[in-house]
Amino acid sequence: MEPALRAAVKRLPAALSRISAYHFGWHNAAGTALTDPSSGKAVRPALAYLAAEALGGPPRCATPGAVAIELVHNFALVHDDIMDGDIMRRNRPTLWKQFGTGPALLAGDGLHILAIDTLLSQHTDRARTAVSLLTRAMIATLHGQAKDLGFTQRPWSGPAAVTPDEYRQAAAAKTGALIACSTAVGAVLAGGHPRHVARFAAFGRHLGIAFQCTDDVIGLWGEPGRTGKPVGGDLLAARKTLPIIAALASDTPAARGLLDLLSRGGEPLTANDLPEALHLVDVAGGRAAAEAEAQRHMTAAIHALAPLRISSQAREELNAMALYLTRRDR
Amino acid sequence: MEPALRAAVKRLPAALSRISAYHFGWHNAAGTALTDPSSGKAVRPALAYLAAEALGGPPRCATPGAVAIELVHNFALVHDDIMDGDIMRRNRPTLWKQFGTGPALLAGDGLHILAIDTLLSQHTDRARTAVSLLTRAMIATLHGQAKDLGFTQRPWSGPAAVTPDEYRQAAAAKTGALIACSTAVGAVLAGGHPRHVARFAAFGRHLGIAFQCTDDVIGLWGEPGRTGKPVGGDLLAARKTLPIIAALASDTPAARGLLDLLSRGGEPLTANDLPEALHLVDVAGGRAAAEAEAQRHMTAAIHALAPLRISSQAREELNAMALYLTRRDR
Repeated sequence: MEPALRAAVKRLPAALSRISAYHFGWHNAAGTALTDPSSGKAVRPALAYLAAEALGGPPRCATPGAVAIELVHNFALVHDDIMDGDIMRRNRPTLWKQFGTGPALLAGDGLHILAIDTLLSQHTDRARTAVSLLTRAMIATLHGQAKDLGFTQRPWSGPAAVTPDEYRQAAAAKTGALIACSTAVGAVLAGGHPRHVARFAAFGRHLGIAFQCTDDVIGLWGEPGRTGKPVGGDLLAARKTLPIIAALASDTPAARGLLDLLSRGGEPLTANDLPEALHLVDVAGGRAAAEAEAQRHMTAAIHALAPLRISSQAREELNAMALYLTRRDR
Repeated sequence: MEPALRAAVKRLPAALSRISAYHFGWHNAAGTALTDPSSGKAVRPALAYLAAEALGGPPRCATPGAVAIELVHNFALVHDDIMDGDIMRRNRPTLWKQFGTGPALLAGDGLHILAIDTLLSQHTDRARTAVSLLTRAMIATLHGQAKDLGFTQRPWSGPAAVTPDEYRQAAAAKTGALIACSTAVGAVLAGGHPRHVARFAAFGRHLGIAFQCTDDVIGLWGEPGRTGKPVGGDLLAARKTLPIIAALASDTPAARGLLDLLSRGGEPLTANDLPEALHLVDVAGGRAAAEAEAQRHMTAAIHALAPLRISSQAREELNAMALYLTRRDR
């Protein structure tokens, strides 16, 4: 996929193509090609290829879909980093931090429109179906992002606090929709029957939620060297992620201790508070709740494909992907 | 068009739909519907309807195209205001200024994807052609915006200064592409022959450049009460617009005086400098150059449609639109 992805990004105006190559980890900030590119994991393209393969399609049939989805995913990352004010991604300064908000915003818009154009310029019925799936997934993602943005203004406790159920809905929209789209688009481009496409979409949707739950565990207890995220980062940034929400909802002494820490004088947590806060989230069952939720959805994902007659090799690869995505050290 | 546009915007997540209604001038900042909505001029939708009408299509055939283009136009306005740091639009605080950068950025992304989805969900061959025209126009617009962003870092004089020719290319891309797309999409949705569509595209492209040149004159000598833009605003913001670039390129004493003012100690111009700076742009021929350029392209636009057999009423309406768009008090 990467040659096709690079070719797509080259269609951007030179200034935006250059900074996008930095975002993808192909170039350093000065524009020099890196010999050891530190790209993302390309999970979504891999899922599109695996779904196409499972239905007997040749790998290349999934390429336009894989490229489009990876472009959309990275468009969302670039804009999310601006919105969240995040300054590091994959152990490097984020795009807006390195090149300014204006260029980063415009580069994100460019990746967005390239994604649509990559599929539209195929001029096949399958690609047209795929692009419709993609726009619908993007609207669903937007609903999830809007929910998430709304969460930031909600209190940690009381009747207006974010509930684990609300979290689930937001995760299904924010992360589930695009991962569901990855497998569905792979299936569509391989010529899959709508009934099969629906099963691959369900597989991806559950996997996406499991992935998000795991990501939330990593956002608190990840290994910085491997994940590029600081330990306890989500607590320091006061993000309302599942382990924290579930811990606060647990009605335990640890939950009350955590609430005291989080609401103390309206001050954000500092690195000094972190060991205690992490311990309280754990003791209140927040970590176990997120891990159980991930497990539940990973099982549901595997079940969604169970009735399909696909090769055992394809099934094993899809299941291995599901396992990988719910590992804490991925 | 407006009911269809409002229905599209309602498909956004509630929080984004609400702030988008503020951007469109339908609501005030508190979310109350305004009895006297101060929407934009809806120039692009009007052009789509006029092109469709000229080719004998019923008005409603152009509606999905008109809505999509107005959504794209407003997506670009919302993101441009963030990039440029502009705080006022249509005499009200800009979206990011009123609601924050994150929500405004996300609302812009939402309008972007809604535009694509509005056309795709028609499921007709004409709408599919229209959406391809739209994505190509959006990529061209991006090239223009990237050029424009690059201009901000260039000096006012010397070999690296922005030339009037570079300005023309950027204007054709930044403003011409989407206005060309407006008339072309109207023609396509009315079932126009590709040869006719190309003529409508040429009409729109020339009109777009004329529009941008006029906009640049308004950006210096507009009537704030009518246009919502402050007198001399583009000089205060150090924007490299045609009147200023042409004045500086004129090799006159006034050009040298203007350059002195603009480069004095690297300080931006103040309101005190404005009368003198505006006078110098005028004396150096900057205003006349921009007005002549607008006139030239308006004439070319009218010529592009000359060979077409369309009703004299449709022709008069299209020409009237061209005249309106190049009026300084529009």
